[in-house]
Amino acid sequence: MAETADLHVFDDAMRLDDLGGGRLRGRTTEPYANMVGPFGGVTAATVLRAIELQPDKHGDPVAMTVNFVTAIEAGELDVATRCVHTSRSTQHWTVEMTQGEQVVVTATAITGVHRDTWSDTEAAPPTPPPPSELEPRGPVPMAWPNQYEMRFHKGPLAGTGQPCDDSETIVWVRDQPERPLDFASLTAIADSFFPRIYVRLGRPIPIGTVSLTVYYHAGADELAAHGTDYLLGEARGSRYERGFFDQYAKLWSPSGNLLATSHQLVYFKG
Amino acid sequence: MAETADLHVFDDAMRLDDLGGGRLRGRTTEPYANMVGPFGGVTAATVLRAIELQPDKHGDPVAMTVNFVTAIEAGELDVATRCVHTSRSTQHWTVEMTQGEQVVVTATAITGVHRDTWSDTEAAPPTPPPPSELEPRGPVPMAWPNQYEMRFHKGPLAGTGQPCDDSETIVWVRDQPERPLDFASLTAIADSFFPRIYVRLGRPIPIGTVSLTVYYHAGADELAAHGTDYLLGEARGSRYERGFFDQYAKLWSPSGNLLATSHQLVYFKG
Repeated sequence: MAETADLHVFDDAMRLDDLGGGRLRGRTTEPYANMVGPFGGVTAATVLRAIELQPDKHGDPVAMTVNFVTAIEAGELDVATRCVHTSRSTQHWTVEMTQGEQVVVTATAITGVHRDTWSDTEAAPPTPPPPSELEPRGPVPMAWPNQYEMRFHKGPLAGTGQPCDDSETIVWVRDQPERPLDFASLTAIADSFFPRIYVRLGRPIPIGTVSLTVYYHAGADELAAHGTDYLLGEARGSRYERGFFDQYAKLWSPSGNLLATSHQLVYFKG
Repeated sequence: MAETADLHVFDDAMRLDDLGGGRLRGRTTEPYANMVGPFGGVTAATVLRAIELQPDKHGDPVAMTVNFVTAIEAGELDVATRCVHTSRSTQHWTVEMTQGEQVVVTATAITGVHRDTWSDTEAAPPTPPPPSELEPRGPVPMAWPNQYEMRFHKGPLAGTGQPCDDSETIVWVRDQPERPLDFASLTAIADSFFPRIYVRLGRPIPIGTVSLTVYYHAGADELAAHGTDYLLGEARGSRYERGFFDQYAKLWSPSGNLLATSHQLVYFKG
């Protein structure tokens, strides 16, 4: 489509046609293809964007959980949003993504009105060298990672062939080409950490995220101030057992603002 | 009711009448009353139990997210479960809890079939003295904490009056009276950590959990082997800002098995 030629690849992936009644239609896009189906981060971002587009939405995203029910096929996908309840401080949403009759994603989300309160960041950011001192990751055979600039301080891409006791990754990451950060892109980046089991085993194995939760600690103003700067990401796993493992991630601004935390439970085979 | 006289208070709280079609009816119980409404951990456990009671359920709980939409009144509550999809490895559920026409809880859950795979626990448990060397917490004016034996190694109950830079709590915890651990009680205990902001400020303030996620790392056999033994719990927060904060918890067996991890986003005022 001619009118999308100047769109950033991420904005192209976020395009949703309003079908009315809280329903929207999107589509998978080639640049964010994963080994099977689309990159889950973009699927999660699509869910968030669908909520953001609802005229009765109030507040910023506060928490979202996206469950990956079954494989998403390349092509169109329908997103049905439902506002369950609105209070003075929060709004609760449920979302289903379908392809034909098949539910492919279920999700719940909360948006909230930010107020001035006591504040503190208790967690401490990692302290890698600045991005300019770290090599960017080279191209990879999967599509979606090539839409992100990643400069690893610790825990590089899988494929080293070396098992590793410690799954921690510390990485500078941002959209490639650069794009001002918003809640949708923050959501996608929260899922941009390679599966921790690749790092542990030193090789990729068949995996699939089952459930992804993102907590948004930053308001829209904080994201706007961030602009196109790098995010500092850290991720690690805690237990790998009987076909499932968990992983935890934090996303920081270069100045040490904790913008988002995320957690996911991943199925694995092997 | 006479037939419930010998039930453990937790089993009494978990009683659900089958209304057919995936719907069940439960009720709040006095022993698990919180400052406003019931203890969220028992509400979450009720959601899980409703899924466990479905005849087509397969596998053990793997992940559950429970969203607290609005205050739950004392009395009856209806739980509607829906199995969205079943695959060989996982089953996806959505749940709504209602009182009259009001949705009070939305939830999603995944059950999974455990298989023998590569396994490792990467996280390390804290190393407090054994429970016998720590004083049990005394009675508190709220009902629900009195249904738990808690022996604090670090981060005692709020009300010290002393602000604290570090929200970490390390505590031995189990049902009081003792009760064999199951997925429902594990779910409730995952929410038994006092709000991290109480620890930080040294005093209670108005709060409400908005969303709670539990990842279940143990299988039913591991829980059965645990029996009535203590759980070792640790919890901390990461960012408190504009009316919301997050907190993270891990629940270990005394022998160092990571049974569950949980995360929650909490609304606060002040």
